[in-house]
Amino acid sequence: MKELWKKRRELVEAALAEELAKTPVLDATLRASMEYSLMAGGKRLRPILLMAAADAVGADGTKFLSVACALETIHTYSLIHDDLPAMDDDALRRGKATNHVVYGDGIAILAGDALLTLAFTVILRQKDVPAETLLRVVDEISRAAGAEGMVGGQALDLEAENRQITMEELRSVHRGKTGALFCAALRSGAILAGATEEQLAALTSYADHFGLAFQITDDILDVIGSAEEIGKPVGSDEKNNKSTYVSLTSLPEAQALARCTAEAAEEALSIFGAEADFLRGLVSYLVNRKQ
Amino acid sequence: MKELWKKRRELVEAALAEELAKTPVLDATLRASMEYSLMAGGKRLRPILLMAAADAVGADGTKFLSVACALETIHTYSLIHDDLPAMDDDALRRGKATNHVVYGDGIAILAGDALLTLAFTVILRQKDVPAETLLRVVDEISRAAGAEGMVGGQALDLEAENRQITMEELRSVHRGKTGALFCAALRSGAILAGATEEQLAALTSYADHFGLAFQITDDILDVIGSAEEIGKPVGSDEKNNKSTYVSLTSLPEAQALARCTAEAAEEALSIFGAEADFLRGLVSYLVNRKQ
Repeated sequence: MKELWKKRRELVEAALAEELAKTPVLDATLRASMEYSLMAGGKRLRPILLMAAADAVGADGTKFLSVACALETIHTYSLIHDDLPAMDDDALRRGKATNHVVYGDGIAILAGDALLTLAFTVILRQKDVPAETLLRVVDEISRAAGAEGMVGGQALDLEAENRQITMEELRSVHRGKTGALFCAALRSGAILAGATEEQLAALTSYADHFGLAFQITDDILDVIGSAEEIGKPVGSDEKNNKSTYVSLTSLPEAQALARCTAEAAEEALSIFGAEADFLRGLVSYLVNRKQ
Repeated sequence: MKELWKKRRELVEAALAEELAKTPVLDATLRASMEYSLMAGGKRLRPILLMAAADAVGADGTKFLSVACALETIHTYSLIHDDLPAMDDDALRRGKATNHVVYGDGIAILAGDALLTLAFTVILRQKDVPAETLLRVVDEISRAAGAEGMVGGQALDLEAENRQITMEELRSVHRGKTGALFCAALRSGAILAGATEEQLAALTSYADHFGLAFQITDDILDVIGSAEEIGKPVGSDEKNNKSTYVSLTSLPEAQALARCTAEAAEEALSIFGAEADFLRGLVSYLVNRKQ
């Protein structure tokens, strides 16, 4: 599984560089700022999920590389804006200075805006997909990225800072902030590959549990990880008075919840055969990750 | 002409309110912030241009209200982000406190992000247009709004602050910052209405001259307008050390250039009959406007 991931990550890296190179950018600093964050590595999890969902349905996931890249430009824009002083005010990301620290707040905001907008240009570059299908994917992705998904979750998160929130509110924050785009990645891959309604429902359920398991693990790592391994300061949630799965329960309870949710994610895949093995492996990998 | 404009503006106002109402927004403050700026009035020029271009080609422009609204959500997002302290740092817009003054920088950034993303959801709500045509429109609009258009122009503008720039550079700034979206509005209207290549080229040329005339007039109004009429402080360009058509030439020269460019815009419409009368009237109206 790790081998396939590595190969596909390399595909995504190359495709992202190519998509950016194909894009005329009026201002050189803006291009540098976009490239700085887009090409800063990372797990490329959303593109990988999209391709893996298409695989699960019996297609070749690598055929949908353009749409996969669009998810990564959206994810990258969200990180740039989240790190701004007006938001989480983080100076370090993946072991590097954050975008606004290097380029200033103004250019960082614009680089985020440009990467979000670029996503839709890049989706349109996707070849060999019927127009109706591509429109459906634009719809999935725009709704997941916007006020009813990622941006909405980020706003909830911002509003919840410095006050105690309930477990239910925390769940809403993360469903929006990270869950919605995971879900769009898996659903888009399935739709592009021509999934049946049953397959689409199964992958949506997988996405839900996967997103939750991912987030709980993130919260756990913020407590027990090392700054070197995760590339940003540990304990930042506590410092920012952020409610997390660990702070609302306890470390052992959060770990148990992560395991349990991971199992539910795997169960959601029961209708699939060996084509979904990558998605199965992904869950245990992410729950046991160190970064 | 003013009568038709008023009627269509009312159509756009109602449609914008409806599009927002249809959109689930996870956070109540985020929704309030989006609504505050989206429903703050304004000329609704980009939707009006889209519909007028479709009219010129012989269709009924009001059929394409969803795509028209998407242009306005994009325009509104750009105003919110432009007004931020990290950018132009404006406290007043259309006679009202700017978004970040009311909601704080964090929510203002997110409201902008949400309105940009919403544009693509709203385009997808457009009915009675072939899928291939709608994809072409998504492509036009995303490219115009992004790094090769509006965001690129904004970055050029930000980089040019506090230094003297050439007339050519100023032209590039405005081609990106305002011209690109005007152009996308007119081209999208034409494409949706099934324009021929000749018609599309003519409307593109109109858009180019129209955008320039609009911008020169904006610069002139910043010098000779009254704060009350234009709804924001006058002289803000000079205060911000911004190069403008007036500062790079002189007031009379800028006024002559505006007239001349307006004529070129009207000439570009020579292949059209009475269906383009609204676009013709629009030019003289905008060049002679007081706000």
